[in-house]
Amino acid sequence: MIQDKFKNWKHITKLDPDREHTLALIEQVLHSGTDAIVIGGTQGITAQKTARLLEMTRTVVGSSLPICIEISHLETIQPGADGYFVPVVLNAGSVEWLIGAHQKALTSFSFILEHLNIDLNKLLIPEGYIILNPYSAAAQKTAANTELTAVDIISYCLLAQYLFKLPIIYLEYSGKLGSLDIVSQIKRHTKGTRLFYGGGITTPEAAYDFAQYADTIVVGNVVYQQPELLKSIVEAAKT
Amino acid sequence: MIQDKFKNWKHITKLDPDREHTLALIEQVLHSGTDAIVIGGTQGITAQKTARLLEMTRTVVGSSLPICIEISHLETIQPGADGYFVPVVLNAGSVEWLIGAHQKALTSFSFILEHLNIDLNKLLIPEGYIILNPYSAAAQKTAANTELTAVDIISYCLLAQYLFKLPIIYLEYSGKLGSLDIVSQIKRHTKGTRLFYGGGITTPEAAYDFAQYADTIVVGNVVYQQPELLKSIVEAAKT
Repeated sequence: MIQDKFKNWKHITKLDPDREHTLALIEQVLHSGTDAIVIGGTQGITAQKTARLLEMTRTVVGSSLPICIEISHLETIQPGADGYFVPVVLNAGSVEWLIGAHQKALTSFSFILEHLNIDLNKLLIPEGYIILNPYSAAAQKTAANTELTAVDIISYCLLAQYLFKLPIIYLEYSGKLGSLDIVSQIKRHTKGTRLFYGGGITTPEAAYDFAQYADTIVVGNVVYQQPELLKSIVEAAKT
Repeated sequence: MIQDKFKNWKHITKLDPDREHTLALIEQVLHSGTDAIVIGGTQGITAQKTARLLEMTRTVVGSSLPICIEISHLETIQPGADGYFVPVVLNAGSVEWLIGAHQKALTSFSFILEHLNIDLNKLLIPEGYIILNPYSAAAQKTAANTELTAVDIISYCLLAQYLFKLPIIYLEYSGKLGSLDIVSQIKRHTKGTRLFYGGGITTPEAAYDFAQYADTIVVGNVVYQQPELLKSIVEAAKT
């Protein structure tokens, strides 16, 4: 079951439906040693782009790597993935990105899902996102309050663990390298939760540093900028 | 552990720190057959009133009934209760009552709690509140969106179960009797979650009706208005 499997992932490769992909690029991902592919993005996401990327990835990867979708928009809900990550933006500025969009999605799909007798518990993995780069598209879209001290972030972690039983805390610096000091402090307060780190990892050195504290590092942009580095980044993360 | 015990409660008596209590009244509660006392309210709550009511209740009840506090304000966090319910208002109009206040509370208390080596998982019980009476103090305080169809409410229930793993869905009509039809519809979508109902139960007939669908009914005002009815209300709820 995907809920157990993801706990062993040290490295995730995130593919953006809004980018162009070649079969050769996805093969490079497959052979990089990464533990899973997650399809997700913030801008320009459509159902067609998501479905096309899922199909293309499945063609190359088959069942040799898990392929998940991160449900950032209603349009990303496409059948055929191995699991679905659901971001809950803990520091969002409005109810919409905390639970509003999720409630609307469930309103649209719940009756269909019940009729199909699909057990959502086996498919959905909620992620407690904390968005920390104020200039990122994700921060702007969710009106995230990024002015947070380490204590603020730790209290979000406690909230995620004790109130919502979220299995993942996701520190998202989206496009820029975050503070290793913050990540190391947070790590001490995430017992029973997986700590994901994403943002700005484009070298093996950065992968090594952040993978010391984060349970899982998520790498995205480098796939499009310097795909030849991916393999050494994965190796560094797993050292 | 309180997390398991509360699942067997059919009837809860809610006592409001902002009201006057006599020892005789609390004795009446003790002998009514109710399963637990929860201390909680919306208006005029102070630390002193909460602590005083907890002490008075404990004096009368001892350990023969569980006494919990519902943490509606920072001031209600007082030591000595058997458990702490934490309302998460799913249909709140702002982030504050969803998680904002909770995060601030954890910011204030987390380091103390860690030093005391208290396991919050054993003390805290989050409740997924859905506030349905637009004229109630709770609805106004949380700017709750009470214009909800049965489908909307069901999607909140799914959200509570699948994303946040909340152990309780609490339909709160606060002061007025709710729709039995809504409660019966919701009951069919709360597998794995306890369904609490609160609001307007002042007769054994109403207790009987709502206890058919709700797992637990919560009774408050009647304690102050017609305490002599409490025993028959508890009996009706348990029939």
